[in-house]
This record gives sequence, structure tokens and C-alpha cells, in this order.
Amino acid sequence: MASTLSAADSSAFEGTAPRRLNWSGLIEAYRPYLPVTDSTPVVTLLEGNTPLIPVPMIAKIIGKGVRVLVKFDGLNPTGSFKDRGMTLAISKAKEAGAKAVICASTGNTSASAAAYARRGGMRAFVLIPDGYVALGKLAQALLYGAEVLAIKGNFDQALNIVREMAESYPVTLVNSVNPYRLEGQKTGAFEVVDNLGDAPDWLCIPVGNAGNITAYWMGFCQYHQQGKCNRLPRMMGFQASGASPLVTGQVFTHPETVATAIRIGNPASWEKALAAQQASQGQFNSVTDAEILEAYRLLASQEGIFCEPASAASVAGLLKVKDQVPAGATIVCVLTGNGLKDPDTAINHSNNQFKPGIEPTTAAVAQAMGL
Amino acid sequence: MASTLSAADSSAFEGTAPRRLNWSGLIEAYRPYLPVTDSTPVVTLLEGNTPLIPVPMIAKIIGKGVRVLVKFDGLNPTGSFKDRGMTLAISKAKEAGAKAVICASTGNTSASAAAYARRGGMRAFVLIPDGYVALGKLAQALLYGAEVLAIKGNFDQALNIVREMAESYPVTLVNSVNPYRLEGQKTGAFEVVDNLGDAPDWLCIPVGNAGNITAYWMGFCQYHQQGKCNRLPRMMGFQASGASPLVTGQVFTHPETVATAIRIGNPASWEKALAAQQASQGQFNSVTDAEILEAYRLLASQEGIFCEPASAASVAGLLKVKDQVPAGATIVCVLTGNGLKDPDTAINHSNNQFKPGIEPTTAAVAQAMGL
Repeated sequence: MASTLSAADSSAFEGTAPRRLNWSGLIEAYRPYLPVTDSTPVVTLLEGNTPLIPVPMIAKIIGKGVRVLVKFDGLNPTGSFKDRGMTLAISKAKEAGAKAVICASTGNTSASAAAYARRGGMRAFVLIPDGYVALGKLAQALLYGAEVLAIKGNFDQALNIVREMAESYPVTLVNSVNPYRLEGQKTGAFEVVDNLGDAPDWLCIPVGNAGNITAYWMGFCQYHQQGKCNRLPRMMGFQASGASPLVTGQVFTHPETVATAIRIGNPASWEKALAAQQASQGQFNSVTDAEILEAYRLLASQEGIFCEPASAASVAGLLKVKDQVPAGATIVCVLTGNGLKDPDTAINHSNNQFKPGIEPTTAAVAQAMGL
Repeated sequence: MASTLSAADSSAFEGTAPRRLNWSGLIEAYRPYLPVTDSTPVVTLLEGNTPLIPVPMIAKIIGKGVRVLVKFDGLNPTGSFKDRGMTLAISKAKEAGAKAVICASTGNTSASAAAYARRGGMRAFVLIPDGYVALGKLAQALLYGAEVLAIKGNFDQALNIVREMAESYPVTLVNSVNPYRLEGQKTGAFEVVDNLGDAPDWLCIPVGNAGNITAYWMGFCQYHQQGKCNRLPRMMGFQASGASPLVTGQVFTHPETVATAIRIGNPASWEKALAAQQASQGQFNSVTDAEILEAYRLLASQEGIFCEPASAASVAGLLKVKDQVPAGATIVCVLTGNGLKDPDTAINHSNNQFKPGIEPTTAAVAQAMGL
């Protein structure tokens, strides 16, 4: 067994007094580790402090006395890990006097940017290509009050325009190139260490734009330098095989995967992620869509955890390389988003157990149940 | 201003050391207050400990120096407050040796029951009327591994059959008549008091089946008896006007409202909720669908909080009776579910700010932004 106490294992708490936290959001919790000052206005939805949930059925599949936990960042306020970076990016934008923020995104980033910008009293602009995405994907951002602009062009043009806008107009760019995003996201690593009492042996994480693996590594290194943990984890990054540039070393011009949140062919943080992998003696591996969906169903139907398909890549990857797991290891898999973000995949890929047309009697129902 | 310190207001934490909690779920946190023993197997997804978020724009609308916070229970593991009751109901079912649980529900209850039952190694059956609901509404429960049975009958027949099943077969009923559900849900009140340092002046809460208002009142009373709070709140229950039996005193045979989670014409906890309202000198009031949707948009676009339409009834109600709010009061509104549960309402009822067909130049985008 691993030496660290299982802080998130409920049995470890039997008989102890209930403990409560008045959690005041990431920036207050980790202020000494973040680029803020007393004059930074804190825009927060009390993000972070997400649960680190033991997944004993996954551990059982691996065997060897390993302990596996998932960091369920889908329970952040807007439903994804993006909130960690956004509380800082928006607070710093407000400190700088911005009246508006802008990003090119159709998914979790646009929702998070809109929620925090509006809470901070700023306008939130989202730039996308015409016809690029169904309105349903943008519904959350629109409800948060995002102003969505669709250009007659492609996604690369949208990215170029938002960069130019941020240079020439009084709007702050909150795409992944905003350095405060990664600074905020590194707090995920802090929380893992604070929960476990040390870093895990392995940190398994989905990799798309490669910002989150970069941020987690920054967080572990910073905590290690401060003496908050005694070791550093191996960073195990997993990409979808249809969008796996870090595995193949080649840009994917037409990335494709069911895991839309990591459907990225040319990651912004490519070099930083490679550095994290090398420094931590970690690995990049790819998982197929079938493996991702299998892990997605396994997490829901055996562990009770409903995550985005992209999130399940971390667990799918762990299961794929399970023969390499050292006996007694403590492993954390990051689940980046809430499954409720993608209802279509849930509808299309559950092991649908639906029996219609049953006679309305107790006996008929009992028979249908196999009792 | 109210006398209690704003524990969830981030400004109250400036300069303090970061504090962390190894939260181990409701049952461990509140063990002395719950009907469990050392031999109860704890089935948990680390539910509870949800954020109490200040909503300053809502407070500003009311004025009079009031402080308003929302208890965002949509950040529970399956996306609703139902997880609070389900961790206890499923743990007790497991303790009693149940191999399966059953409920008649199409919404948050079935998802929560399925997640916890499967995590506890039990089968989860959901009984519904044939053709009663689109499969999409059940997608979350199906992914968690629920076995859904549709009978050729109506919802009342389904309710009768699940009751009979629980009497005659080795399955545990986890519908709202299961007494452990309310015992678990009362922990919402404990958390509010633990966050604020005392009970609020008002507790505003959506009322459908009337179980949650009953449970919150149980929680406040129990904490008050134990000396954990010095006062008790006024319980302010809000129903949708198309489903407002507690306001009118009449059963609604055909309840109708956009707030589907409180679309109930004959609440199971009617008498208990009335007792809570009377003992607390509270009130029941109704809000229209238009008022609910206005509060729903306001919470998202001004505060950055995306809740279910039913949840917004608590805030809509508070705004409706704002003239009665005492100066300097501390008010908590319960938001029972995550907005991601109901994407259709988000699509149909945002103040859609979508501008297509913009030329792909920085100048054209700047013009569209009004810069």
C-alpha cells in the first residue's frame, strides 16, 4: 500500500469530528502562490475545492494494491476546470481596467469567460466561425450574457482577430495565451497535494491544448519548492488517437474524436507540456474513442461519476498502461469537465437499459426486473 | 448591516492563511446528527460542502443593506440537492442488505438514485409511464446504469407499483417517502449555519414536493437545539403559480410550469411543510413562469450562476416580496439544481446576443462590438 493516508477515503474519517471550511475561492486560498496583490479585485464564484473521489472499481481492475482517485473538476461553478484559470484572468483584467474580454472558443472556455466577466461587470465577447457550431453548444455562454460574433471565416482567422483586437482595442484576451489562465489552473495540483498530504505517484490527465498538464506540473513544482510535498509525480498525458500530436510528434490538420474538449491538432502549450513530461519522467500515450467511451461508461455505471468524454481519457489511458503501474501506487486522474455538458454523448453511448410496454402490475414489473 | 460576518464573502478572507478541508462527504461530516452507526457502510460521492455564493446584484436590487447569498446545490456530484438524501438512503439500504433500489421519477431523483446505488454495488430500477418523457431526460440515469421500466399506465400507477414492490420484494424504495432522504437533506441547513456562523434571517427555497423545505427546517431546529445557532430563520417557500397547492390550499390536478423540478400538484410533504412555515413565521408565495425565467437570466448574466429554472424560483420569490425584507437582513436562497440539467430552457430563454455573418476583419469585428 502507498504510504500516504487516504484523505478522501471516508473510512479514514470515522469517529473524527466533522470539519467545515469556509472556502472563499482559489485566489484567497492560494494567495501567496498567485500573482495578485491587495489591490487586485477578486472576481470569484468560489471555484476550486473540488472533490478527490476514490474509484475503487478502477483500482480493482489494476490490482497490485494501488489506490486511484479522480479529481472531479466538473464540479466547478460553470462545470469545468476552466474556472480555475478564469477567476485569475478576469480578476487581473478587472485590475487592469478592462471593460470587456474576448476569446475564440465554442466550449468550456467561452462559458467560463462569460460567467466570470459578467460577474465582474465586464462585457464578454466570443468569436467563432459562421456555421461552426450548433447554437446549443453555446447556450450556456449565451445565458451567462456572452455576446457571440460569428465571422465569415475559419477558426484560425477568428484566433488572429481576437489577438489583434486585444492589441488595438480596450479588450482583454482570455484565450489560453493569457498567462494568468495557467497560473490559476496550477491550483488543481495544490489541492491534490493538500488532500493527499503529498503528491501522488502518477498524475493522469487528458491533453488537448496541453495547458492543463503544463499548469499541474507548475503547481507540483512550486509546492515542492515550498516544501509542501516531498516528491513529484510522473505526469502521464493522454490524447485521443485522432488528435494526438504530442504522441506522434506531428500536427493533426484535421483532428477528430468524440472527446471534443481535447480535439486539438496543434496544441498551444506543446513545448511546455513536453518539458513537463520529460522533467517528470512521464509519458504521452493515445487512447481510441472506443477506449474513451468505455472508461466514460465505467466511471458512470460503476463509480457513480458522470464526466465529459474528454475527461474519461485520463482513466482510459491509465487502464491502457496499467501493466506499468508500480505496486501500491497512489494515482490521481483528472476529470476536467461535467458530463452534463455533453448530453448527446450520454444519450448515444449509454448501455441503454430501457424496457417499454410493461403491464401496470406489480407481478409484471417484478418479472421485468428478474425477481 | 447584518451582524454575522460574511464567511463566503471573499473580502472577509484577505490576508488570512489559506485553509483547506479534506471533506469526506455528508455522513462523515455530520455523523453525530444522522441515523448511522459504525456498522453503516458509507456510500458517498463526497456530496455536500457546496458553495454559499454572495449575489451582490440581487442584494442591490433589494437595497436596505441586505446581504443575499445562494446555496448552490447544483454543484453536488450528480447536479442536484438530491445527492444529500441519497447518500444516506443508499447507505442505509446497503446496511439493510438490499441488492436493488427502486423509484418512480423522471428527473433528478432517478439520476441520483442510480449513481449512488451503482456505486454501492446495487441495481437501480426506475419506473415511469410509457411515453411520459423523452429519452434525453433519462440519459444521465441510463449512463449511471439505471434500468428503466416503462409501464402501460400513468404516474400514479407507477408510484403504487414501486411501493408494492418495496413491500413484497427485496428492493428498497428510494422515492421521497424514504425517511432517510429528508435526514440527509437537512445537512443543507447545517452547512448554511456552519458557513455563516448562525442561521440567516430568511431562508428562501423552491417548493415542489415540499421535502426540501421540511428537511431544511429539521436541520435548523436540530442545530438550534444543539446550540450551533442562536436563532431560527423565517422559512420562505416559493412555488410556481401553475403548481402552487401550498399557496392556494388546493391540489393541482394538472400542474404546469417551465420549472419542471417543482411541477407537483399534490406534495408528499404538504403537512410537514405547512408546520415548518407556521413554526418559523414564514410564508408560501407563488411566482409566475415569467418571473422565474427573469430570475434565471438575472442569476446567470449578472452573477455568473447557471441554475435549473426551478431553482430560480427562490430568487424570483425573494424579489417579489422584497418590500417585506427587513433592513440589514442576511438572506440565503437555495438553488437546488445545475442549469446544465436543462439545456433546452437555456437555448430557448437566454437574451440571445448572437450576431452572424460578420466580415473576417478586425475592423468589422470592432464595429460589431460597438468599439
